[in-house]
Amino acid sequence: MTTTRRRAVLQLATGLAATLPVTSWARAGLSVPAVNAERLRRSLEDLSAFGRPAGGTFADGVSRVAYSEADVAGRALAMQLMRAAGLTPVVDAAGNISGRRPGSDPSLRPILIGSHIDTVPGGGNFDGILGSLAAIEVVRTLEEHQVRTRHPIEIAIWSNEEGDPMGSAAATGPVPALLMDSAAPANAAARDALRRIGGDPAKVASARRAPGSIRCYLELHIEQGGVLDAEKVPIGVVEGIVAIDQYEVTIEGVANHAGTTPMPLRQDALIAAAKMIEAVNQIATAEPGAQVATVGKLEVTPNAANVIPGRVRHTVEIRDLSSDKVARLGAAMARRAQQIAAETQTRITMTRYLHLEPALADPALQTAIEAAAANLGLRTMRLPSGAGHDAQEVAKIGPMGMIFVPSVGGVSHSPKEFTTWADCANGANVLLGTLLAVDRKRSAGAR
Amino acid sequence: MTTTRRRAVLQLATGLAATLPVTSWARAGLSVPAVNAERLRRSLEDLSAFGRPAGGTFADGVSRVAYSEADVAGRALAMQLMRAAGLTPVVDAAGNISGRRPGSDPSLRPILIGSHIDTVPGGGNFDGILGSLAAIEVVRTLEEHQVRTRHPIEIAIWSNEEGDPMGSAAATGPVPALLMDSAAPANAAARDALRRIGGDPAKVASARRAPGSIRCYLELHIEQGGVLDAEKVPIGVVEGIVAIDQYEVTIEGVANHAGTTPMPLRQDALIAAAKMIEAVNQIATAEPGAQVATVGKLEVTPNAANVIPGRVRHTVEIRDLSSDKVARLGAAMARRAQQIAAETQTRITMTRYLHLEPALADPALQTAIEAAAANLGLRTMRLPSGAGHDAQEVAKIGPMGMIFVPSVGGVSHSPKEFTTWADCANGANVLLGTLLAVDRKRSAGAR
Repeated sequence: MTTTRRRAVLQLATGLAATLPVTSWARAGLSVPAVNAERLRRSLEDLSAFGRPAGGTFADGVSRVAYSEADVAGRALAMQLMRAAGLTPVVDAAGNISGRRPGSDPSLRPILIGSHIDTVPGGGNFDGILGSLAAIEVVRTLEEHQVRTRHPIEIAIWSNEEGDPMGSAAATGPVPALLMDSAAPANAAARDALRRIGGDPAKVASARRAPGSIRCYLELHIEQGGVLDAEKVPIGVVEGIVAIDQYEVTIEGVANHAGTTPMPLRQDALIAAAKMIEAVNQIATAEPGAQVATVGKLEVTPNAANVIPGRVRHTVEIRDLSSDKVARLGAAMARRAQQIAAETQTRITMTRYLHLEPALADPALQTAIEAAAANLGLRTMRLPSGAGHDAQEVAKIGPMGMIFVPSVGGVSHSPKEFTTWADCANGANVLLGTLLAVDRKRSAGAR
Repeated sequence: MTTTRRRAVLQLATGLAATLPVTSWARAGLSVPAVNAERLRRSLEDLSAFGRPAGGTFADGVSRVAYSEADVAGRALAMQLMRAAGLTPVVDAAGNISGRRPGSDPSLRPILIGSHIDTVPGGGNFDGILGSLAAIEVVRTLEEHQVRTRHPIEIAIWSNEEGDPMGSAAATGPVPALLMDSAAPANAAARDALRRIGGDPAKVASARRAPGSIRCYLELHIEQGGVLDAEKVPIGVVEGIVAIDQYEVTIEGVANHAGTTPMPLRQDALIAAAKMIEAVNQIATAEPGAQVATVGKLEVTPNAANVIPGRVRHTVEIRDLSSDKVARLGAAMARRAQQIAAETQTRITMTRYLHLEPALADPALQTAIEAAAANLGLRTMRLPSGAGHDAQEVAKIGPMGMIFVPSVGGVSHSPKEFTTWADCANGANVLLGTLLAVDRKRSAGAR
């Protein structure tokens, strides 16, 4: 969507840059090498062949579900690209692919960059993929331009981001339940699957990285929402990955004959549900902020045209960067549910079954991303990530920053998922600029 | 629910009564024999054994689905009861059981009384069954008290009222589609099933009764709604069987990620559906009358907690005695749908897929039922039948009248379906009184 973009490749004055604080970078008139946008595009197109519908094109999207044949083939291509960037790919016991480019200062911890290349069934060619291949392109650019960084640069292509168990979770926390030694068939299947991508379910604990073992983690990703596209802003600076609460609402009315039961004698669970759906929307939009609330799943019993619904079960999902706000909105919806139950002569219960804490992005990294974008003449805006990402797992072991690029029409998890090639290149260049700025910044300690 | 009831059996002054108009019956101080309430109860209890859940009692309801073994056994009991009432049961090619008691005037057409004894799966012991066994009890009472009627009295126990093809439809109209000669597997199955109850699919046309071939049809039935029970009125006088329109509403929004799509950018099909559900209710209740409207079936796509619903399909069913009103309400809902589509940025289509004309009860028969009830000291109220009945088919060949008795709590098509024994006896006595009043009334012609 944007047209402002630099293609000129300027050699870094590395000796000078290394002494400058991050925010002085642009003011000092320094520049950074630019990624090869055509090569980045070609790598996305090449990878799209693995999992593409038979007879389809790039525009038909991809089903490269983790552990599938397509995933195995896609991972092989990614490793080939890593080798072309001068890296030696390694697969850990959780199936994560990594490759490290040494830095000049052996005392420094690595700057980790990456994402994932597995997709949802019927997914698109950008979600995770752009961040993974841009990370490789960034390293290849450093290599081509002989830019020596102080920190080691490490690429991580996390396994199975779209499913469970997530490779990034296994790398940053305890062994995921599905990989624990167990006779349960689901666990056995997960362990078998992991072996197909070179993992070792018996040794997953060995994949764990210690908290504080990285300088930081940077992930470029498509927004998957429509904010940047609508606002015509090429770079999003992620404030954090939202907290999520999910509730199940059960409404008990009385199923009865739709012909013989007069309107005033009804206890219609679906009318109560309709009021709940509107209440959830109203409560979520009644105050300013980026919070979202959704009734996404709803089931009616007995679900026949000539029977008054006796029972409705539906979900309520609430997301915001503040878990306090998420909890407060849920409480307001639960209070409204009791009013609706009284109005409709139904019984309503609302039970929370999922609670995820937010993962906040590091403030200094947000500033660094903004500076890197500004250096390229790219406008930015801060926004929360409503979707989950590997970054929320990796935030457990070090400072995390995320760069978003626009999703055309906000579409994602769909063959129609698209980000313009210009925006892809912008994102990769901002990732490179941020990485170099962080690398040059003298840091006192871990964070 | 009621306690006023006559048990005294008084011999009819038939010669005198025969000359009196219907409404003068009570004023003339005449009385009619009363049915044997205990015998009626016993017959209901006996029939309940066929299709009862294993190890259950009367209170556990019954699954006597048409053509099943339980149906075959139940029909055998009904025929045995008919024989005990002096009738010779006959099974027509559509599986309907009938039995005729001759009248004194060979020029008169029969008064037809009856209902059905098949049930829904997991049904109760009253729906159809009360009307069928009360009809037999009425004839047995006439027989015991040696009451000679002028008209023949004919009992009809219609086959497969709860399913398709209905025996009463086959007896009053063209051969139902499912019994037409055809190689379609569904038709073959229906024809095989019909043979199990003594029908003959090849000769179903022979079961058809000509329009004008009956003096009238009277059917006693449980209300299946909660109006009589709520109003504490023991006898309902049915004004007719309602017209029914069913619509399918399809709402197209845009499915999207529930985390990444800000509230103002959503096109949520379920929010539009919630507004439709409330609109259907509001439009149906905004004017006086007995009309009902129901959203009974609703399906969400893709139906996941973390995805904004992209598509909702739901039904709208509207019922009223006036098909004009039903059409007008549907049109108002369709107009509202377009407003909602505009408000929610969705696309809504509303398509009628079922239209049933009403079957109005004969006004003179309504008056006769009221008089018969008054003669027994029973209060009445007029009300539409929101449910379909054999009577709506039989109305095609002659004047139709229906008597309702209260359903406790309005519950039906459920093992919990119940009508007090006192109300059952009241209904049977009103059926008997109405029959005798009609029999005595000098009628000029067919209707």
